[in-house]
Amino acid sequence: MDKLSSLAKFKSSCPFLGRTKSSTLRTLCTSSSPRYPSLSRLTERATQCPVMGPALQTRSSQMVAGYASFAGSADIQKIHEEKGVFPIPTGTNIEMCPHATKALAAARMAEDLAKAAKHKAAKAAAKPSTSAAPSGCPFHAAQAAQGKGKEAAAAGGFNYDKFYADELEKKHQDASYRYFNNINRMAHKFPIAHTGHPKDEVEVWCANDYLGMGNNPIVLETMHRTLDTYGHGAGGTRNIAGNTGMHLALEEELAALHRKPAALVFSSCYVANDATLATLGSKLPGCIYFSDSMNHASMIQGMRHSGTKRVIFNHNDLEDLEYKLAQYPKETPKIIAFESVYSMCGSIGPISQICDLAKKYGALTFLDEVHAVGLYGPHGAGVAEHLDYEAQQRAGNSREPVKGSVMDRIDIITGTLGKAYGAIGGYIAGSSDFVDMIRSYASGFIFTTSLPPANMAGARASISYQKEYLGDRQLMQINVRELKSRFESLDIPVVPGPSHIVPVLIGDPTFARLASDMLLEKHNVYVQAINYPTVARGEERLRFTVTPGHNIDQIARLAKAVDQTFTELGIKRTSVWKAEGGRAGVGMPDAKPVEPIWTNGQLGMVDGSAPKLLRAGQKRIVDARAVAVTREKFNDLLGPVVEPRVTTVQLDMAAGMRPLALPADALLPASEVSVSA
Amino acid sequence: MDKLSSLAKFKSSCPFLGRTKSSTLRTLCTSSSPRYPSLSRLTERATQCPVMGPALQTRSSQMVAGYASFAGSADIQKIHEEKGVFPIPTGTNIEMCPHATKALAAARMAEDLAKAAKHKAAKAAAKPSTSAAPSGCPFHAAQAAQGKGKEAAAAGGFNYDKFYADELEKKHQDASYRYFNNINRMAHKFPIAHTGHPKDEVEVWCANDYLGMGNNPIVLETMHRTLDTYGHGAGGTRNIAGNTGMHLALEEELAALHRKPAALVFSSCYVANDATLATLGSKLPGCIYFSDSMNHASMIQGMRHSGTKRVIFNHNDLEDLEYKLAQYPKETPKIIAFESVYSMCGSIGPISQICDLAKKYGALTFLDEVHAVGLYGPHGAGVAEHLDYEAQQRAGNSREPVKGSVMDRIDIITGTLGKAYGAIGGYIAGSSDFVDMIRSYASGFIFTTSLPPANMAGARASISYQKEYLGDRQLMQINVRELKSRFESLDIPVVPGPSHIVPVLIGDPTFARLASDMLLEKHNVYVQAINYPTVARGEERLRFTVTPGHNIDQIARLAKAVDQTFTELGIKRTSVWKAEGGRAGVGMPDAKPVEPIWTNGQLGMVDGSAPKLLRAGQKRIVDARAVAVTREKFNDLLGPVVEPRVTTVQLDMAAGMRPLALPADALLPASEVSVSA
Repeated sequence: MDKLSSLAKFKSSCPFLGRTKSSTLRTLCTSSSPRYPSLSRLTERATQCPVMGPALQTRSSQMVAGYASFAGSADIQKIHEEKGVFPIPTGTNIEMCPHATKALAAARMAEDLAKAAKHKAAKAAAKPSTSAAPSGCPFHAAQAAQGKGKEAAAAGGFNYDKFYADELEKKHQDASYRYFNNINRMAHKFPIAHTGHPKDEVEVWCANDYLGMGNNPIVLETMHRTLDTYGHGAGGTRNIAGNTGMHLALEEELAALHRKPAALVFSSCYVANDATLATLGSKLPGCIYFSDSMNHASMIQGMRHSGTKRVIFNHNDLEDLEYKLAQYPKETPKIIAFESVYSMCGSIGPISQICDLAKKYGALTFLDEVHAVGLYGPHGAGVAEHLDYEAQQRAGNSREPVKGSVMDRIDIITGTLGKAYGAIGGYIAGSSDFVDMIRSYASGFIFTTSLPPANMAGARASISYQKEYLGDRQLMQINVRELKSRFESLDIPVVPGPSHIVPVLIGDPTFARLASDMLLEKHNVYVQAINYPTVARGEERLRFTVTPGHNIDQIARLAKAVDQTFTELGIKRTSVWKAEGGRAGVGMPDAKPVEPIWTNGQLGMVDGSAPKLLRAGQKRIVDARAVAVTREKFNDLLGPVVEPRVTTVQLDMAAGMRPLALPADALLPASEVSVSA
Repeated sequence: MDKLSSLAKFKSSCPFLGRTKSSTLRTLCTSSSPRYPSLSRLTERATQCPVMGPALQTRSSQMVAGYASFAGSADIQKIHEEKGVFPIPTGTNIEMCPHATKALAAARMAEDLAKAAKHKAAKAAAKPSTSAAPSGCPFHAAQAAQGKGKEAAAAGGFNYDKFYADELEKKHQDASYRYFNNINRMAHKFPIAHTGHPKDEVEVWCANDYLGMGNNPIVLETMHRTLDTYGHGAGGTRNIAGNTGMHLALEEELAALHRKPAALVFSSCYVANDATLATLGSKLPGCIYFSDSMNHASMIQGMRHSGTKRVIFNHNDLEDLEYKLAQYPKETPKIIAFESVYSMCGSIGPISQICDLAKKYGALTFLDEVHAVGLYGPHGAGVAEHLDYEAQQRAGNSREPVKGSVMDRIDIITGTLGKAYGAIGGYIAGSSDFVDMIRSYASGFIFTTSLPPANMAGARASISYQKEYLGDRQLMQINVRELKSRFESLDIPVVPGPSHIVPVLIGDPTFARLASDMLLEKHNVYVQAINYPTVARGEERLRFTVTPGHNIDQIARLAKAVDQTFTELGIKRTSVWKAEGGRAGVGMPDAKPVEPIWTNGQLGMVDGSAPKLLRAGQKRIVDARAVAVTREKFNDLLGPVVEPRVTTVQLDMAAGMRPLALPADALLPASEVSVSA
């Protein structure tokens, strides 16, 4: 039974619903409850209704009894056999199984319904209602607000409400409508988050806070200090009252990180890419973009907004790129726009070779290092730095470029503060005149309130810490190897790649979603399904991100949970893909093995300096030297820290908030931790 | 002597400069030093050079002696008389005075140079240099980084470096090149900021943190709590791991504020406007935009990006708008895009009448309340709320719309969290289906990391506090009246308007900048000059923003300082504009008096409940009830506050950072403060 037919049933018992416009019902029905992801807002609210509440409670018991155990593979198998559909376990011809989807959805819904009804009842008993709604039926408010419609339509005007509803219907039809999960990542239980209920905890396996820097003590300490000193918002654009020492220092930190003369911070890297590419393309006379076919939406948007010509080359295909570059005169301005790590498949762009082509054909290089900054290179400057690992390491904190290095040859680098640095904002780095031109012309930079000083300080602390401490980058890659190898030994199809991304091929949109749901529901594992249009049809996947904060027990449990899920849902294994000729790099006939970009030597596995995998309950290393170096950088603006410790608060919802000092061992003396050479 | 000719002089004494490309020198020369705004980075760095440092120190003494007292009006007058140019005091024919500009710039430069040289010397004495530059000349690093150029150009490719330099040159030519001042607004000295040097303090008179909510104790307390609980970054897009309870609660708070079914938060209101208008326009079949001629850049960008037709109507001109609407069939989708408060002139859009036209011609209304949310209406929902003040006040915290009210009739409201709410981010509010459609289709929303939970919590705390407490809005408007009336009595030309914006007409780009410089230099008053293209040529102005945190002494000093500046620079007074026939609303012949939108009754001036102007040293009122109501809202996620006080840190650079509790009187009992009825 799906939501709409449940709704039809409810409708008959409530005079209000009978009068409600169907577009209103559709909206209430399709926006999911923040607390109970499998329930619609309509259903959740209905639990509060004096009429519907008790009816729903009865209904939920029936549903739990009827459906809760229904979604096992045995049941689906049974239905399939009855209907003469393909057998699941062999994994062949899985396209879409409506039985499995509906059964599982119904089961989750029934359980959520039971929880919601119980929760509301408990809450109602605990305190009197503060709602101002007269009748006690929460639907009325929604109807009043929604119901105004456009009288215009009746009077011959365009029907905007119908237009919105139709556009949403399209999303529902092609299954690309998104329900957002409510995920609250807890600073002191990383990588654990709670869902809508503070006590419902899940392990997060798909966040882009790749190194857990969002909860690093020196980041939080710096932000607390800055918040106390400079308050919250910046209070203006960079030109009017919103240009602070924290912004300038962060931009200098970023420029130094990439060994470029200048850097500029934007609201996000989406805005950085959009504004920079739109400005460059519209200003450079007759400019042509050469864009990798897997480039991020923000780059595509920026190139479109520039109004200039865009030539798309096949992903990472140097031959195709060169063929296309050669079509145009050398003096024509050209920009090759590409990424270092492609986030959905984990491939890495051939940066050095693209620089060669750029030189040969007179093109600028625009490299998006969004999924690489903080994670690659001896100082975390990204893949371009990583490609000259030893030379860049030797150069240490020098501000000068390493002559002839890949990073030096790239003209424009863009990066984010919102992923590995665990902060917010994006940036560009390049020559002073280039950066100054974007600063002077890009509307999306000029006419917007600058980011708050505290966030800028937090981002800078994070960059500084990662510049000084190699251990997080190493441990992350070691964990990635650990998870990939466990998956491989379980015949689970990992899309091969040299980076930290662990994409597990599912090959079907419904099963990708089902697998994600089942992992959350049964194993408390949160990993979002990646479907079309983010990936090609038939290449749907689960995209796992592994951090240095995940311990070995969590990794082991995850591998087991994914294995079980594959079995229960009958998802194709690597061996099956291989038998079918392969897909998305999995089980391809003549595939060469892909070597990880971090070598054994770089990970400290040759000289024995590699950080050790965490065991359950073990605390992450916080590098004392990197903390000290970072803290010192803020003294000019924030003054010296009187008590050099990181005060913090541990979340314990039962006991309330207890201000605590971080345990003494969280800040180990430098001698006890592994520090980069 | 300007910077370039100084440079020529330096060049002769340094062999390095002789070899440096002129584009490099231009860049170093045109990017201003964060610490000493009137110095270029080149000059500031030169103070560290072993060769140039001592030479500069000598030079600065000569310059101080020669120019420091040169920029008074008497001197300029003298030059003008000698050259036979117009006499300043009458104020006629002021167009551009190169003498005044250069003299003042030279004077500031000389002073900064002296400070910089002294500062560097002191710093060098205090600790050994940590620079890795081999020769000790800081220019080398800059040259190495800048000097790579595009070999491509030499080999027949396009010369990108020249292109950047040319684009920058255009900005210098038309005087629209922007030098950012380094302004650090101090939470505990609001509205005081420090410049590049923590001890150089200035009064801020142009920030958009209109109510000082960026330092409100409940905002900071809430952010500290959230930071400790959830860390820094959100860690993902809203769809993948970045959708937290703080985001959902903020969106519900915003929807309730505007009494709309739904709201959606974006990285900024620039992004909200851009993404929403681009998506709507590109999706609605044959849609036409009707855009007020003074709309903000973000709206213009969004309409452009939609690729659909845009008809511009004269600013606030209903007749022109109707004429243009009537050209198209009623069934054609139309969107009227406009603002409530126009930030550069302080005018207010005729919202209600535009709603009438929208109904008549079948158009959607898109209202940007960016400069109004937090500042107008009994709950701070903006001008649309303010227009039905009593009815909206009576409706209290009800979630339902006030039927037939202006706010109810507006289809789409956009607002910011970055101005009156003192936070970061922007949003849209409207019907559920509309918001859901934007959520589902707008690339700029979907593919970007969501804002950090702590900032979302701070924004929500700010909205909640302002919803519960009227006093800040009232006191701000009372202060605005106070400043406007002082300016008027001094014959200083204020562009008339019903809002909180206080634009003072200068009517010349050079004098606008000079006045801004002189106010900063002589009076420690920071107000940015607003020149073309932000305002029309000949309507250049200083735009003052007055907050409830400015006390009566500061207001009095400001009026006096502006008066002195007008005298010294010989800027035209109101009476002169009047004699000339008026400009930009100043001294217009048949001008009707403009009534402020906040009436005496609404300000509490009729019943005597109006908040009193602050005296120097007096603390701002923090409303205890609004604090308590706001704090309570976060308990579900953050747990109860064990010690209900706001711990904070006072900036005192001499004594270092001292953690302090807020003074007890900062949180007054509810009985002692004025609370909205």
